[in-house]
Amino acid sequence: MIANYKSVFLNYLEERVEVKEPRNLYEPIAYILNLGGKKLRPILTLMATDIFGGNHKKALDAALAIEVFHNFTLIHDDIMDDAPLRRGNQTVHEKWDVNTGILSGDAMLILAYQYLENYEVTTFKKLTSLFSKTALEVCEGQQLDIDFETRNDVTIEEYIKMISLKTSVLVATALKMGAVIADASTEDTNHIYNFGLNLGIAFQLQDDYLDAYGNPDTFGKQVGGDIIENKKTYLYIKALELSSESEKETLNKLFNTEQHDYQQKIEKVKTIFELSGASEKTRVAIKNYTQKAFEVLESISITSEKKQLLREFGEGLMNRNV
Amino acid sequence: MIANYKSVFLNYLEERVEVKEPRNLYEPIAYILNLGGKKLRPILTLMATDIFGGNHKKALDAALAIEVFHNFTLIHDDIMDDAPLRRGNQTVHEKWDVNTGILSGDAMLILAYQYLENYEVTTFKKLTSLFSKTALEVCEGQQLDIDFETRNDVTIEEYIKMISLKTSVLVATALKMGAVIADASTEDTNHIYNFGLNLGIAFQLQDDYLDAYGNPDTFGKQVGGDIIENKKTYLYIKALELSSESEKETLNKLFNTEQHDYQQKIEKVKTIFELSGASEKTRVAIKNYTQKAFEVLESISITSEKKQLLREFGEGLMNRNV
Repeated sequence: MIANYKSVFLNYLEERVEVKEPRNLYEPIAYILNLGGKKLRPILTLMATDIFGGNHKKALDAALAIEVFHNFTLIHDDIMDDAPLRRGNQTVHEKWDVNTGILSGDAMLILAYQYLENYEVTTFKKLTSLFSKTALEVCEGQQLDIDFETRNDVTIEEYIKMISLKTSVLVATALKMGAVIADASTEDTNHIYNFGLNLGIAFQLQDDYLDAYGNPDTFGKQVGGDIIENKKTYLYIKALELSSESEKETLNKLFNTEQHDYQQKIEKVKTIFELSGASEKTRVAIKNYTQKAFEVLESISITSEKKQLLREFGEGLMNRNV
Repeated sequence: MIANYKSVFLNYLEERVEVKEPRNLYEPIAYILNLGGKKLRPILTLMATDIFGGNHKKALDAALAIEVFHNFTLIHDDIMDDAPLRRGNQTVHEKWDVNTGILSGDAMLILAYQYLENYEVTTFKKLTSLFSKTALEVCEGQQLDIDFETRNDVTIEEYIKMISLKTSVLVATALKMGAVIADASTEDTNHIYNFGLNLGIAFQLQDDYLDAYGNPDTFGKQVGGDIIENKKTYLYIKALELSSESEKETLNKLFNTEQHDYQQKIEKVKTIFELSGASEKTRVAIKNYTQKAFEVLESISITSEKKQLLREFGEGLMNRNV
């Protein structure tokens, strides 16, 4: 079922995304959209429309808007992070240049809005307003992420807020858009949004966790990358919170002074994550947010088979260890 | 009358643009919006609504959307051009940094869409679609401008297309939005758009002209700045078109090799502009596009007093010599 949504979406993407003049504006857009990826968000939109009794084909434009927006954020975030690679390929600003990344990204944000124009006026306004609200929240999340880099007192609560804005609201909105297109009740669209929000938080926390504890053979990125880059993830903030004074000092030192032996740094930090209980607490948090998502699912007025579909999708997502 | 529109708009701007958390995202937005400027585009929106029998107060949100969008393009263009100053003050990426400029700019593009949400569904969809179309055209214009930097065969036709997209469509859309809000007929909204398009082209050509021939005491920027920066303006392209082979060679040499004496370069280039007839042709083109704008004005079904208002506004704009 999910594989099918993905291929339906990819066909539509190919049909709709054209490289026209000026080519230097549109080529980078086609490039990033064809780099692969799970296409998680558009699949959720299509699935939500079906689940609420609509036809997923009607949701293709909204799914495209979500995916193009997501890739716009990737281009601009990669510039801000000075990232050379995205999905194993050159980032847009590396393959072209920073100015191209800025301008093609801008065009993608506008294109995302344009894809919604196929919906009739009432649905269009609902979708567009939801989209703008979410897009602005994603910017706020990115800003908080940048702000946190230079702060040493970020709390778990602030961190959850940041990842909610930067990542989860878009997952939630992908689902909610699908529900809106299927004319689901206001209650149900809000429930599906909250399902997505909690699942999105669980997903991001799991990303943090796998970055340190994933299987190096299948993880795709360098295991320990966040530790090398001194990223203040849930694991790190929780470790600071739970550690003894001496462990805290060691951790601070490892993150705030130049470390030449990365492998040794990773080992030391992971030991503190484990001894402090931070890694255990992170696993619990992932489980709790996943659980919360599944609880919200219960309130939605759809058949239990359809709930099962969403649950399986969520479980599939959370059982990955890569 | 125009002074009044400006102060009404500035009051509304102050009321609506708030610096909230995260401050690092919203402060640069308030900063650039408060740098002054003519506020030409929002004034046109308010004026158009009045002229077509609406109340300009209803147009304030659309005017705000246009102005915030325009300032978003300024922030991102200033990054791309590596410009240190904007309206005599530090550009956003200079005062903060490039990442701030990118992200706050992105947020402004989204905010512009959000300001349109106060309109009811049908008007909202009309305005939003027009806005997206125009915003994408502005990106295309910016891309063409970048592309032209490394080309030596840009034609006058291509140049007019570039400035239409980069500058004029937004002037045209500012007016058209005002007409849409006043429920003007489709014909009239198209006419007012074409009025703005031609006036916008005339305005940009005049900008090119004044950059070389403006009064140094009142121009505000360095006279000859475009020549120093080897900008391929209408004057330059026309001069290449009209020059003898030897003048053409001189001009190419002046633009393609390092010149240490800027004042001498400016004098030499301006002499070619004059001898070739390019400066005369540019004045004629400015006059023609202004004339074309005024002709379109005649087809609009509004009273001659209202036409007179638009004509005076256009004349005021075109008679500046600063």
